[in-house]
Amino acid sequence: MPLVRITARDSYGDTALAAIAGAVHAALVEAVHIPADDRFQIVQKLPASMFISDPHFLEIERREPVLVEVTLRAGRDDTMKRAFYQRAAELAREGAGVRPEDLMIVLRENTSCDWSFGNGTAQYAPEPASV
Amino acid sequence: MPLVRITARDSYGDTALAAIAGAVHAALVEAVHIPADDRFQIVQKLPASMFISDPHFLEIERREPVLVEVTLRAGRDDTMKRAFYQRAAELAREGAGVRPEDLMIVLRENTSCDWSFGNGTAQYAPEPASV
Amino acid sequence: MPLVRITARDSYGDTALAAIAGAVHAALVEAVHIPADDRFQIVQKLPASMFISDPHFLEIERREPVLVEVTLRAGRDDTMKRAFYQRAAELAREGAGVRPEDLMIVLRENTSCDWSFGNGTAQYAPEPASV
Repeated sequence: MPLVRITARDSYGDTALAAIAGAVHAALVEAVHIPADDRFQIVQKLPASMFISDPHFLEIERREPVLVEVTLRAGRDDTMKRAFYQRAAELAREGAGVRPEDLMIVLRENTSCDWSFGNGTAQYAPEPASV
Repeated sequence: MPLVRITARDSYGDTALAAIAGAVHAALVEAVHIPADDRFQIVQKLPASMFISDPHFLEIERREPVLVEVTLRAGRDDTMKRAFYQRAAELAREGAGVRPEDLMIVLRENTSCDWSFGNGTAQYAPEPASV
Repeated sequence: MPLVRITARDSYGDTALAAIAGAVHAALVEAVHIPADDRFQIVQKLPASMFISDPHFLEIERREPVLVEVTLRAGRDDTMKRAFYQRAAELAREGAGVRPEDLMIVLRENTSCDWSFGNGTAQYAPEPASV
């Protein structure tokens, strides 16, 4: 799993939101090589008063910001992370009309035993077989 | 503190949500040995369009998914994490009728000085006494 | 960037919420020395049933809790974190009338390459120049 949380200004309609979520997932599949069915995403729309985003920080002109938070297992190197940022910006522009300036991404890493995909077990770090 | 964020499909009613939150907390108390009054939880209901969850990933059949995100201090070993996953699945099924396949959990770890429980101080990493 | 997520009980009005967000940002600028225009905040109001917060844990009497989650790059020492907690409690009380007992803070750290502020690049960890 990566777990993805997308927060967008409420100027985006539901169709655009769905396209953004699809673009972010496709970029993870292409650049981070996650399985295509490893898709877990939470999407939220907020007005500007509840989603405050500086319009100029680092000399990037933001108008309708979209923030993508990704939690994933540690182990991807910087080259792969940069490739994901680039591909997400490309696909969000192509698929949902998001200006590249408006797509912000933050990653958080954890470990294999920090995930349970159901059934009360840690699928990425199963219990060692007893002797 | 662990900080717990629970995201559930909106097919769950308020009573079920409250029972899920209680089950997750009880599992943390039983398996991770947190104090019973160390309870801080955010609960959210979302429609399927805003909470996308693959229905088959890792061959687990999800129908009405519930995602539990837990932030806690580093230091719990894998055995304890696995015990928490198992107990949470048991208690969520018993107390709220959640199918074990539907309960997903992700952990994120930080350190003692990353918590303030109020009053502007770091209760788990207090300032060293001056000499 | 730090990324800030503020969750408050719905007893706070919109004016108070805006003041809390401003106070948290000012405390980050003063105590953690982030740039004044490095402001990215998500704010959410929830009823007590959806934002469960123990009213007595660690013998701190909470009435109208506010939870501040901050994701930031690793590197700040404990002294700086404690200064942030203290200043946030002071400014939230002065600016928004928040009782210091009610302001809880949790930090999560990541690394420089975990941030993209737009344009599909990692502004804090740019690609090395080719030879």
